[in-house]
Amino acid sequence: MIDLSNIKIVLLETTHPGNIGSVARAMKTMNFSNLYLVNPLCQINEISFAMASNARDVLDNAKIYNNLEEVTDDCDFIIGTTARQRDIPIEIVNPRELSENIKTSQYEKIAILLGNESRGLTNQQLSKCRVGCHIPANKSYTSLNIAASLQIILYEILMESRYSVSNINKVDRKNRAKNDQFSSFLEHMDKVLKDINFVKDDRPTISRKIQHIFNKADLTEEEINILRGILSAIENHSQ
Amino acid sequence: MIDLSNIKIVLLETTHPGNIGSVARAMKTMNFSNLYLVNPLCQINEISFAMASNARDVLDNAKIYNNLEEVTDDCDFIIGTTARQRDIPIEIVNPRELSENIKTSQYEKIAILLGNESRGLTNQQLSKCRVGCHIPANKSYTSLNIAASLQIILYEILMESRYSVSNINKVDRKNRAKNDQFSSFLEHMDKVLKDINFVKDDRPTISRKIQHIFNKADLTEEEINILRGILSAIENHSQ
Repeated sequence: MIDLSNIKIVLLETTHPGNIGSVARAMKTMNFSNLYLVNPLCQINEISFAMASNARDVLDNAKIYNNLEEVTDDCDFIIGTTARQRDIPIEIVNPRELSENIKTSQYEKIAILLGNESRGLTNQQLSKCRVGCHIPANKSYTSLNIAASLQIILYEILMESRYSVSNINKVDRKNRAKNDQFSSFLEHMDKVLKDINFVKDDRPTISRKIQHIFNKADLTEEEINILRGILSAIENHSQ
Repeated sequence: MIDLSNIKIVLLETTHPGNIGSVARAMKTMNFSNLYLVNPLCQINEISFAMASNARDVLDNAKIYNNLEEVTDDCDFIIGTTARQRDIPIEIVNPRELSENIKTSQYEKIAILLGNESRGLTNQQLSKCRVGCHIPANKSYTSLNIAASLQIILYEILMESRYSVSNINKVDRKNRAKNDQFSSFLEHMDKVLKDINFVKDDRPTISRKIQHIFNKADLTEEEINILRGILSAIENHSQ
């Protein structure tokens, strides 16, 4: 079973009030209610409410933040949407693969990020995600409206969540690390890699590649603690 | 194969110019192009073109009729969308069942009908359809925006059609590390972890846990090389 109330919908730097309303309607029709706006470039206004139709409550309860981390820190699975090819290491899934993953993986708290209407998520925002979600589309026109993209993704999750399945011998994922633990680990690692002169100065490419390795590893809290123990041992040994 | 060019999208008595534009965008992103308006209650105007974004050509080629039969007379499969229960005898399918039906049934010409925004298709219009298509939704709010409904239906048909679609940046699994490379990396790591006194003597439990982290990461050759580079940097820095 997928608990839809554990899924956050996060809009970053949205520019059109109508799109925020359309997103709210897409969410409510698919049984989702947790809307977050990070640095919106417009207000929720009467156009938003007109586009939301009967999803006014989703807009009324939307939360606004200045900082993405405040929204994602308690999440153990972060998904970034993208309509175009990126030059960063990230696993890309389509909405069906995504919803199958969500059904089988027993995440505690999930965030789905949707970027600004004209450019989508920045590479920096996308590289904070565990996976990217791309909607298969017309090769010469992949750019769905933001609410339309979300409608498809939430529809796939809803379709997948309707069926309860036999569920034996799953790896226990209850102690998956939260994003704030993962971020602190990455910062610690970056510092140590500079200390030992592996990373000489700003090398975002190699940092992202290393981050991708640990993203793929789907770390638990215990594993984060082991890895941070190794980092501390390196620091102590170097002194 | 489903030939998407044999599918007509038919809007009946549409009231909002913006919705016609959003429908055009939904169509073009999913590789559809045949848009028909039957008795529209509004014009295609600048709002339509704004909402269509880069699907202006779909609007430019839209055909307008006064009579539904003129559009559907050459069709051998007519689908009506509905968000609510009707008191008429008609088979109801969801978009996934619909697209499976289309794939296996080799229809020549298909029409998908979408009704007026406030009341949907009339019972009379729906009863002219072979099947009704209902999108599974929130029991207490089933009313998707007209373009959002169409986006999901066309997405399902596109997914089923195996049409050549945009398909970005899938993780390339061709360069997955071979087991000897992985084993050498683990030996190297074990040595370094002893050097820095993280593993004092034989601690098979912690070694297995660390190995499990990198097993889960499904490493490529390049990633093994990066990780061994880090191990070498630790060794050099410790000397």
